[in-house]
Amino acid sequence: MSLRSLSTDQLFAAAVDGDRGALARLLSLVERGGAEARAVGRLSYPRSGAGYTVGLTGAPGAGKSTLTSATIGFLRARGDEVAVLAIDPSSPFTGGAILGDRVRMQDHATDPGVFIRSMATRGHLGGLSLATPEAVRLLDAVGRRWILVETVGVGQVEVEIAGKADTTVVVVNPGWGDSVQANKAGLMEIADVFVINKADRKGVDETRRDLEQMLDLSDLPHDAWRPPIVSVVATERRGVDELWATVERHRATIEVSGELERRRRFRLREELREIVARRLEQRARDIVSGERWDSLQVQVAERSIDPWSAADEMLGPVGA
Amino acid sequence: MSLRSLSTDQLFAAAVDGDRGALARLLSLVERGGAEARAVGRLSYPRSGAGYTVGLTGAPGAGKSTLTSATIGFLRARGDEVAVLAIDPSSPFTGGAILGDRVRMQDHATDPGVFIRSMATRGHLGGLSLATPEAVRLLDAVGRRWILVETVGVGQVEVEIAGKADTTVVVVNPGWGDSVQANKAGLMEIADVFVINKADRKGVDETRRDLEQMLDLSDLPHDAWRPPIVSVVATERRGVDELWATVERHRATIEVSGELERRRRFRLREELREIVARRLEQRARDIVSGERWDSLQVQVAERSIDPWSAADEMLGPVGA
Repeated sequence: MSLRSLSTDQLFAAAVDGDRGALARLLSLVERGGAEARAVGRLSYPRSGAGYTVGLTGAPGAGKSTLTSATIGFLRARGDEVAVLAIDPSSPFTGGAILGDRVRMQDHATDPGVFIRSMATRGHLGGLSLATPEAVRLLDAVGRRWILVETVGVGQVEVEIAGKADTTVVVVNPGWGDSVQANKAGLMEIADVFVINKADRKGVDETRRDLEQMLDLSDLPHDAWRPPIVSVVATERRGVDELWATVERHRATIEVSGELERRRRFRLREELREIVARRLEQRARDIVSGERWDSLQVQVAERSIDPWSAADEMLGPVGA
Repeated sequence: MSLRSLSTDQLFAAAVDGDRGALARLLSLVERGGAEARAVGRLSYPRSGAGYTVGLTGAPGAGKSTLTSATIGFLRARGDEVAVLAIDPSSPFTGGAILGDRVRMQDHATDPGVFIRSMATRGHLGGLSLATPEAVRLLDAVGRRWILVETVGVGQVEVEIAGKADTTVVVVNPGWGDSVQANKAGLMEIADVFVINKADRKGVDETRRDLEQMLDLSDLPHDAWRPPIVSVVATERRGVDELWATVERHRATIEVSGELERRRRFRLREELREIVARRLEQRARDIVSGERWDSLQVQVAERSIDPWSAADEMLGPVGA
């Protein structure tokens, strides 16, 4: 039976049973948004919560994909399954499309313990800011325990998405300053762990000092987690074990302190707020594009009705 | 009887009879927005349309107030009544407040044929972009035949407001280039008439050439009105007669061509669009600040309801 003939419920059941094709199809629905995405969301929601999300971000060329690939290797070697969402707000390609960097991950393409997926905006009403948490929740709901969310740049959207993970890893290089100048503050704010990748190059110590200094200046509460800085050479898988030990130490810390729960609750509230805002926007667009709107516009222009009464007719009276 | 004890209808009737205090009070209501502003709007609307609006804008220091004052003098000398709205988006002062530049207009303060009013944003939901056309319509409805709308700077808001007049006058000075660099394109777009004020200084010819060149480069339709350039020395009232003759030539041209009617219809549509947008924004704010919202947020955070169902509960189902 073709996947296309399956209902969303059937696809979901198949994905829970480990069917990768069904999972890919559900992710396409999520990506596209609309009623079917919402149906997927309603199935995922009650089953999600056990998975753990790690965000990875950094300037283009920082070696995030290589690091992701090395991390996958590390996790698979110890038997953990992993899913990767590669988010590229600027790319028109989605779904099955392979981004340039994804090629490096093809080592894992035939491993059933690895699921890699690229996402871009396409038609989703809420854009990536809504599609990403929905996709993460789906991967979580079908049983993926580690979910890596890799974003491609250090623009506002990327930083925002990466910052919505349970643990956020910011990847820099020796002499990083210039490449991320524009958004250093944003990166400092979301980082739970810093990685200096390409640590076989000159300038590691200066970069570490630079980061420590910025951490000193930032207003961390006295007892808060201070982002550790881990040196890595991803091309040789050097330092990946230490990176992952640091990620798990952060996880344990925020699980115990209640910070993880607080973060997740905050994200859910933000998501609800976003859904409501998008839906109101959509409603506004519907209102100003219908026949009734056209006719009221003409009436206002002809002065047969005043603008406030026209607005009342469209929206109901003020306060309704 | 005190003005404060009068109903909006009574105030409006008094203002139509020439009561300046009643008019000032109605303008305060308009400025404040809300239900009373809408009531004023509904009274003004059917009575408006006979007045003619002239927008004046230019960089701070270009001498707009002096030019306005000289224009008032010119219009009063030939017996025309005039109202002036001085709009300053950056000023917290409104209503009775006298802006620094307004001092120059105090020559006319005791003349019953002149009505001058400063406006700023204060609490109006739609800000100046809604309050200004409402105020203009009120002045129009109570019988003012010339309404000058003077804005203080060349920022986006100022240019937008000045551009919504029937005829828009852009005031520059010799060597104007630097002071308005940021928004030259915006000024070119709204100008119906250019005034080179302080034309007793050096650089008038260069400025005129500069303007002509920009007009040559701009994409005016072949048969369209090409903004004339008038030299003025406002402090000595020199050139004001030519400026006003040009404004009236523009008026006659767009009245005959149908452009005036087209502009006004367009503005009314834009205003309706703005009212609807603001009202939807207000509704969104109401929704995300009520008790029901708080309780749904908690339920979502506790995973007892998913975000889509919570959104449905707030807004009704999708498409409603």
